[in-house]
Amino acid sequence: MKENKENAVISKATIDRLPLYYRTLKLSQEEGIEIISSEELGRKIGVTPEQIRKDLSAFGEFGKKGVGYYVRELMRNIGEILGLNRTWNIAIVGVGHLGWALANYANFSPQGFQLRAIFDIDPEKIGRYINEVEIFHIDTMNEIISARDIQIGIITVPADHAQNIADRLVEAGIKGIWNFAPIKIDVPPNVHVISEDLSVGLSSISYYISRQH
Amino acid sequence: MKENKENAVISKATIDRLPLYYRTLKLSQEEGIEIISSEELGRKIGVTPEQIRKDLSAFGEFGKKGVGYYVRELMRNIGEILGLNRTWNIAIVGVGHLGWALANYANFSPQGFQLRAIFDIDPEKIGRYINEVEIFHIDTMNEIISARDIQIGIITVPADHAQNIADRLVEAGIKGIWNFAPIKIDVPPNVHVISEDLSVGLSSISYYISRQH
Repeated sequence: MKENKENAVISKATIDRLPLYYRTLKLSQEEGIEIISSEELGRKIGVTPEQIRKDLSAFGEFGKKGVGYYVRELMRNIGEILGLNRTWNIAIVGVGHLGWALANYANFSPQGFQLRAIFDIDPEKIGRYINEVEIFHIDTMNEIISARDIQIGIITVPADHAQNIADRLVEAGIKGIWNFAPIKIDVPPNVHVISEDLSVGLSSISYYISRQH
Repeated sequence: MKENKENAVISKATIDRLPLYYRTLKLSQEEGIEIISSEELGRKIGVTPEQIRKDLSAFGEFGKKGVGYYVRELMRNIGEILGLNRTWNIAIVGVGHLGWALANYANFSPQGFQLRAIFDIDPEKIGRYINEVEIFHIDTMNEIISARDIQIGIITVPADHAQNIADRLVEAGIKGIWNFAPIKIDVPPNVHVISEDLSVGLSSISYYISRQH
């Protein structure tokens, strides 16, 4: 649980849905849709219109009764809530296949996430560039993260190195960690960790297919 | 909304949380935890204990009052609900950086997802193997998907090719699609699509960091 500016308690479930709202509004805007009802927005995301109205009411008054939400305005508002109205500097630690793919992922920078550094321990990789971003030795993490004002670290090292990397990132001053290693990592309470398990997406698909038989 | 065997309506939000429960129970089991309370499980996932009890009650009776949930038993039950008590054959379409990373992702097969084929159009890539799985030309999709009994397709092609690939996968008999292309794809109602936007994870982190200042 987290408190917003008005001290209302906002559940983690609500916060997890905001990026989905943001993303769906963005796709709608790209389709030329200017106004969207909570029913239509809910249908696209797979939540009830009541849930959407409840989620958004926690942050203020959006939309007009009988009209719907103004797509661009709601998108901007949710973007502000999510902190997407600014640039975040990110770093990737671990240049395996996944680190490589994430370093090349085209959809981060339009959302304001700028890759500023990549770290590894392999001498073959250090000094090279992926999309104009340099790969540094992890021993230089403290200086680089500080000098480049990096706030978010992405961990794509093997599971048995993940906690050590998390400790180093925290020591270097990182405020948020996106962990792709299949292990729980411990950090101080002022650092926020999201653990990503790509097989979660597949599990949801297998549920729906199973139910059809 | 989807109906379970007993015809109770189960929300998509509940279904989306089940893989998180499953994953957290699995990590708990690996830590040697045999019994877990809904409070502890909720703390690890970031949802309320009431939500967990409500979600699980939709599928039957789990756990004992005053004792908690038996980790292994609950994991097996949720695994069955999610269709993880069997093997699913999957295919990846598009061998860019992300397709390559997913083909090498180690965490799918322990969950029962077996990569059986990879498709691309690049003559340089066709006939090669990633982790013993062959890369085929997409024109052979119908035969390969049928012969290898592939149920789930993963789309990692550029956005402007995603709908065409989705159409081909559906025609080939696929039942579920995991779409990484940043575009909405349309499929018949009997095919289930999950669209993945990796920047959603970062948006959630930026929310929490923003709120701390």
